[in-house]
Amino acid sequence: MRVLGVDPGLTRCGVGVVEGAPGRPLRMLGVGVVRTPAEDEVPRRLLAIEDGLERWLDEHRPDLVAIERVFAQHNVSTVMGTAQASAVAMLCATRRGLPVVLHTPSEVKAAVTGSGRADKAQVTTMVTRLLRLAEPPKPADAADALALAICHIWRGSADGRIAAALANRTTPTTKASKEYRP
Amino acid sequence: MRVLGVDPGLTRCGVGVVEGAPGRPLRMLGVGVVRTPAEDEVPRRLLAIEDGLERWLDEHRPDLVAIERVFAQHNVSTVMGTAQASAVAMLCATRRGLPVVLHTPSEVKAAVTGSGRADKAQVTTMVTRLLRLAEPPKPADAADALALAICHIWRGSADGRIAAALANRTTPTTKASKEYRP
Repeated sequence: MRVLGVDPGLTRCGVGVVEGAPGRPLRMLGVGVVRTPAEDEVPRRLLAIEDGLERWLDEHRPDLVAIERVFAQHNVSTVMGTAQASAVAMLCATRRGLPVVLHTPSEVKAAVTGSGRADKAQVTTMVTRLLRLAEPPKPADAADALALAICHIWRGSADGRIAAALANRTTPTTKASKEYRP
Repeated sequence: MRVLGVDPGLTRCGVGVVEGAPGRPLRMLGVGVVRTPAEDEVPRRLLAIEDGLERWLDEHRPDLVAIERVFAQHNVSTVMGTAQASAVAMLCATRRGLPVVLHTPSEVKAAVTGSGRADKAQVTTMVTRLLRLAEPPKPADAADALALAICHIWRGSADGRIAAALANRTTPTTKASKEYRP
């Protein structure tokens, strides 16, 4: 399964593509940031984000897009831009018929570090380790996008395995789940 | 000048098309609401809003899109959806190369009623009167979309006139401005 993770933002929209499957090592296919200039007007910035994400989707052809769920309680000054950037990401994916899954920041942190309250540095460390990267991905938005994709591969695969197990009671699920949980 | 006004919302996105020019009566070309089912997931709802707005843009070919500016201080439970719907509207317009203008709710109320603190009923009454409609437009989101378009025709035209006056100092601007201000 190939997942595009998106950490939405108007100034920096983190993107990361990870391929993975139950019991097999994760592989990073790409990571980056779609940036838009703060001096541009919001409609133009949203269009630039759309263009940027379309290019990532064209190049990597993911099976699914995982986006960070935005909460209204976040920093009020940035939440509107974050909500708008996430809308663009949802639209780009859905228009192509790709499933979209939203994960909360604490789900993502728990998936890659084991703790829903891990800090940014811890997430970056674990992303670097899990993907066997020579250097930590920068900026934090790019690392977060990879963490989102990893989170989905692990969570989504578990759900898929449960569904498969229910459909075919002979599938061994317990061993596989231990192999690739962090 | 033909303006599409959009009152963004996930459940009801008000749309209204108004044509107008300095010193001439306003004319409503269309009004409606793009609705999306609350039980659908957000990505699907955003796609439905995009489809709906594209149809309005195709049919009415406005010169400009006026959208209500969303504030984070609004009702927290609906502000995220409103921000996301407004992002879709901005994207649809900008993708076509149409200018997007954002007006605050109080600018819109002040434009059509003379008071920035007018209530919804007052806005609907004035929209009905200014467009010489047989019946008030319903729901309130549709009336608000028309009010946004009217607000822009009046404000935008004034700005345009000022720019024209600066470019050509012989243009008489004062009289015209009195003719069509509410």
